[in-house]
This record gives sequence, structure tokens and C-alpha cells, in this order.
Amino acid sequence: MKVKSKYNVAIMGATGAVGEEMLKILEERSFPVDKLTLLASSRSIGRKYKFKGRDIAVQELKEDSFKGIDIVLASAGGSISKKFVPFAVKEGSVVIDNTSAFRMDPKVPLVIPEINADDIKKHKGIIANPNCSTIIMLVPIHPIHKLNRIKRIIVSTYQAASGAGAKAMKELEDQSRDVLEGRPARKEIFPHQIAFNLFSHNSTIGTEGYNEEEIKMIKETKKIFHDEKIKVAATTVRVPVFRAHSESITLELTKKPDLARIRKILGEAPGVKVVDDRGNNYFPMPLEASGKDDVLVGRIRKDLSSDKGLCLFVSGDQLRKGAALNAIQIAEILCGLQVR
Amino acid sequence: MKVKSKYNVAIMGATGAVGEEMLKILEERSFPVDKLTLLASSRSIGRKYKFKGRDIAVQELKEDSFKGIDIVLASAGGSISKKFVPFAVKEGSVVIDNTSAFRMDPKVPLVIPEINADDIKKHKGIIANPNCSTIIMLVPIHPIHKLNRIKRIIVSTYQAASGAGAKAMKELEDQSRDVLEGRPARKEIFPHQIAFNLFSHNSTIGTEGYNEEEIKMIKETKKIFHDEKIKVAATTVRVPVFRAHSESITLELTKKPDLARIRKILGEAPGVKVVDDRGNNYFPMPLEASGKDDVLVGRIRKDLSSDKGLCLFVSGDQLRKGAALNAIQIAEILCGLQVR
Repeated sequence: MKVKSKYNVAIMGATGAVGEEMLKILEERSFPVDKLTLLASSRSIGRKYKFKGRDIAVQELKEDSFKGIDIVLASAGGSISKKFVPFAVKEGSVVIDNTSAFRMDPKVPLVIPEINADDIKKHKGIIANPNCSTIIMLVPIHPIHKLNRIKRIIVSTYQAASGAGAKAMKELEDQSRDVLEGRPARKEIFPHQIAFNLFSHNSTIGTEGYNEEEIKMIKETKKIFHDEKIKVAATTVRVPVFRAHSESITLELTKKPDLARIRKILGEAPGVKVVDDRGNNYFPMPLEASGKDDVLVGRIRKDLSSDKGLCLFVSGDQLRKGAALNAIQIAEILCGLQVR
Repeated sequence: MKVKSKYNVAIMGATGAVGEEMLKILEERSFPVDKLTLLASSRSIGRKYKFKGRDIAVQELKEDSFKGIDIVLASAGGSISKKFVPFAVKEGSVVIDNTSAFRMDPKVPLVIPEINADDIKKHKGIIANPNCSTIIMLVPIHPIHKLNRIKRIIVSTYQAASGAGAKAMKELEDQSRDVLEGRPARKEIFPHQIAFNLFSHNSTIGTEGYNEEEIKMIKETKKIFHDEKIKVAATTVRVPVFRAHSESITLELTKKPDLARIRKILGEAPGVKVVDDRGNNYFPMPLEASGKDDVLVGRIRKDLSSDKGLCLFVSGDQLRKGAALNAIQIAEILCGLQVR
């Protein structure tokens, strides 16, 4: 992309949980925004958001919404992206798409800046932002992969309500109140009660018995790591937590793990914070990962069931590094800015 | 034990979450109780519980509490069991101990009736009830182990507050209310906020980086399965759920798994209920396992990362099968009763 001093930026899906986080992060990180356009469905027309002290009204997302826009941050759902992103690309915008619409398209780079920022250069108008669970898993294990190649990942997730949007977070809140006050929990967004309960991730299950979230983690890992051989066994679970995902990860490495070395490289890795205090039983927790940029990693220990195994526990903010922050970091690289 | 028509039973730790569940289950299952003695610390003296319509007052647990008692159901904590169980044994009582005090003692059988009921015969006055996470993991995988030997178990738990007792359940309730009403969450029982959060199991961490709960799952599995070779990698996590534990389990088997066969044997296995409806995204959930005797098992699928791998997700009531029910089933076998 042509380097400028300021860019016209549009957020597609501006009223969603991720869209709102994008707005916040653009301001927090002083992204060089010239004109900011907030796009959403017609239902949200006129709704206003503050950006750098000014009110910006939401406009209806249309095929002709992209004239003069340099960067589109898209997070309005896969079918919306499939429909509207081609119009943005035709107008010359670069789209950083947070949906699953183009992630596995071989012409579209799928990028986590800490891992494969170089892939951004290959874009043809679209750069895909990975699935939140994939990002939160890969950021802390990539430094290990570089040191001692990971052959197999066995992961079980503890996913927050935020991954299903703002309404799902509200449902967790409302249902919790219902249960505490002895009322039946009302279900609208999730298929099962989320308050004081947990359930297998609510995405469609394929013939092999894996849900879409699990398949994303498997396929996206191969693409981002440029490693078709890496194997992933994923079990994705929704838990009654608001906005950070946690994951229990067991790795099978090529060589026996050197724990001291792994701790050291994780301590130095960008986007990662080691939280691993055995004496105080203090490890990554979603409550502490919420609102943070770094993915927290802890419970770093040898796998007692395999001499080349390593176990970890991670927590990362689903809305920030899992979505909005990762997209804006991609935009920063695209604009030749220093990524922090 | 000498078979009688009725038995004098004592519950040690009668006022705890497990003790109260034991009382309920003794009545539900019409256990042939002659005299029931409720024992607890001096703080609870005089507190009354209904049993078969009669009020029974709690008595102080003392060294001489066991005269004439046939069966002691002990669940007052490991140090209390270590101190008082020998006095019960000396009086000729058989103690079914729900604490970790004697589980790894080679002279003490560690029993899950569905798996190793025969071990009960070897008792010398004490039979140990396994850890709740161990029971909930082993009941559904033992039928698979018999069909196709399990070489390695990789398990991540989603453990309810009840595992830390009635006060911990109340803490989850109170903290949830605090958070919903914008107050800071007050911590008394757990080291970290449990409401809308999760954390690594709050038991002491050893030199290898494993907490006591994980070590219990590893050691108890070997003892119950009579298989010193079976390997276990465990990660135990506390989640904001009231009373059923869930576990994401990946197994490495000796031969490739035959899914149809495994489904069939799980469908027929005692203590197990298959909940595995892919079309409706309906699998085991702690809310549905709560108050049930069976351990629910679902997400039965091949491990895409290993051709001899199998993945499962289970939920089981921590207070019932994870503790009180398992102990009373042991008592039933001990008394020559038909176990349901």
C-alpha cells in the first residue's frame, strides 16, 4: 500500500463487539486516521460513536460505501464479507477481514504479525485475520516451534461469550442474574444455558465429529505456520466468562524440551507475557487477560506422559489480540508503521 | 463384612457438601440403615438433619465415636481421616474414606465399583474412594480400556466449585452477584475470583510443576486400572460452575479405534450415559450432569492428530458419582447388596 501520513479507514460491522473494540484501539494506538467511516446494517444508521472527541454517525453498509477508503477493517460476519469485500477491493481499498470468509483462500494471506508478518506483502487486496482461538494458541507457541519444531498440538479451549458477540455477553449477564434470582435462564443467542454451565462450541459439526471452530484451529495453524505436517487435535468449549479465551495446550516436540530455554524465549517473545508463579499458584486467568494486549502463558511444564511433550495454559483477550488488535497490527505493518 | 439385615452407619463430616449428599443418597437408595450417626466438629453440635422423616442431631467427632458402628462414610478432610479413621478400624468399623489420606496406601483398596469392585474384598478396615476428577474420567473410559488398551490419557478438566466444598459454592454465588452489581468480588475460599473467571486448580504445586489434583489423577488411574504403564497428562482447571466436573479427554489406544463398537459398549456400560447428538450440537454439560448418577459422555470422535487416538468430552456430578454416590455403592457391595 502507498505510504501516506494519514489514511481513510472504514470499520465494517462498527456496532459489533469487535467493531467497537477496533474503534477503541485505533484511538489508543494513535493510528494515523484521516477520515473514519463507520459502516453497519441499516438498523444502526445514525447511531453515534466518539472517536478522538468527535461524534461519528454510523452509515449503512452498501456496495458503494468504499470510495476513497484506504483500509477497511471488516468484522460484520462471513456472509457480509463475502458480499461486500469484493466492492471494497475493486475501489482499491485494502481489506483486513476478521471473518472466516477468505481465510483459507490460497490467494489471501492469513496473518498473525508476531508470526508471519512477511505474508502481508503477498496480499491482493485482502488480508485475513485468523480465528480468535487460533491466534491465542499460536502467539505463545510459535517461539517454541522455532526452537524445537512442534509436531502435534492437543488443545482444549475455555472460550468466552464475547466470541459470539456483544449479545452473547449480555446473555451471560442476564442469565446469571436469572439463575441467581431463581428464574429460568432465557436463551436467545446460545443454544444452551451459558450461565454457570459450559458446552461444546456452538458451531456446525462435520462428518468427522468436529465443529467448525475446531476445523479452523486445525487448518489455520497449518497455513500460518507454513507447515502442512503439523497435527492438531482440538476440543472447543464455551465457558461462562465474558471476554478472554483460555486454552490448555499439550505439545509434542521434535526434541526433548529444554524448560529453562523455553521460559527464556517466551519471556522475550513479542505479544506474550509469562505468568507462571508456582509458589503462589498464580497462572493465566481470563479475568487478567481481559483488556490486555499480550497473551498470558503459564503452567509451563514437561508432559509427564511423553518425553518430548510440553504442557502450557494460556489466556488471551478474545476481542483484542483475538480479533481487533491483531487486525490493526496488520494495518500498522501495511502502513509501514512500527508495530508495538 | 458380616452380612446383616440393617447396619449402623456413621457419616464423618456430615455437615459438608459431600456429607449432606451422603445422607440424601442413603435415603434415596433405601440403604438398610439401622442407626445413623452424624459426626462433625464441635462447631456443628446439635445441628439437625432429616433422615427418613426423623431429625438426627449432629454429634461431635471423637476418638470414641465409633462403638457399635458397622460402616463409617468419611468425608471430613484428609487430616481428620488420618487422625480418626484408625480409631474406627480398631472398633471393627469398615471405613469408606472419601479423602486422599489412604488412597495410595498399598494395603487400602481404591475402588470405583464399575471398574474394580473385586478389590473391595482385600480391605483391612479401610476402602478409599478416589478423587472426584479421577472417578469422572475413569468410569466412561474403562469400557474402552477393556476393549482396546489405553496407553496414554491427555486430560484437561473443567472443575466445579463444589469440589472445594459448600462454602466454595456459596462463594461462586456471592461473587457472581457482586460482579453483576458492580461490587468487587470478595475472596475467602478460593485464591482467585471464581465468578466469570477460571484458574488452575488451587492445590499445591510440586517440583515438576504439577498440582496435587493432577498428581492424584495420574497415580489413582494406575492403581484403579491395575496398570502401572498407563500414562496420564493432566491439566486441572476450576471453572464457574456449581457442582459437576467436565473433562476433555484424548486417548491413545493400542489399536485404531472402532467408533461404532465404542459407541455400543459405552451405551451398555453401567454408570455411563452417552449424550452425543451432533446434529443438535447436544453433548455433555455440567448443568445436565448435576444431580444425576451417570457420567455423561459425548463428542466421541477419532483424534485427527493420531490414528490410534480417540477424543471424548464428559460431565459428571462431583458430589454424587465423584464422591458420595461412589462411596455408598462401595458400601452396598460390602453389604452384599445389589448395586444399581
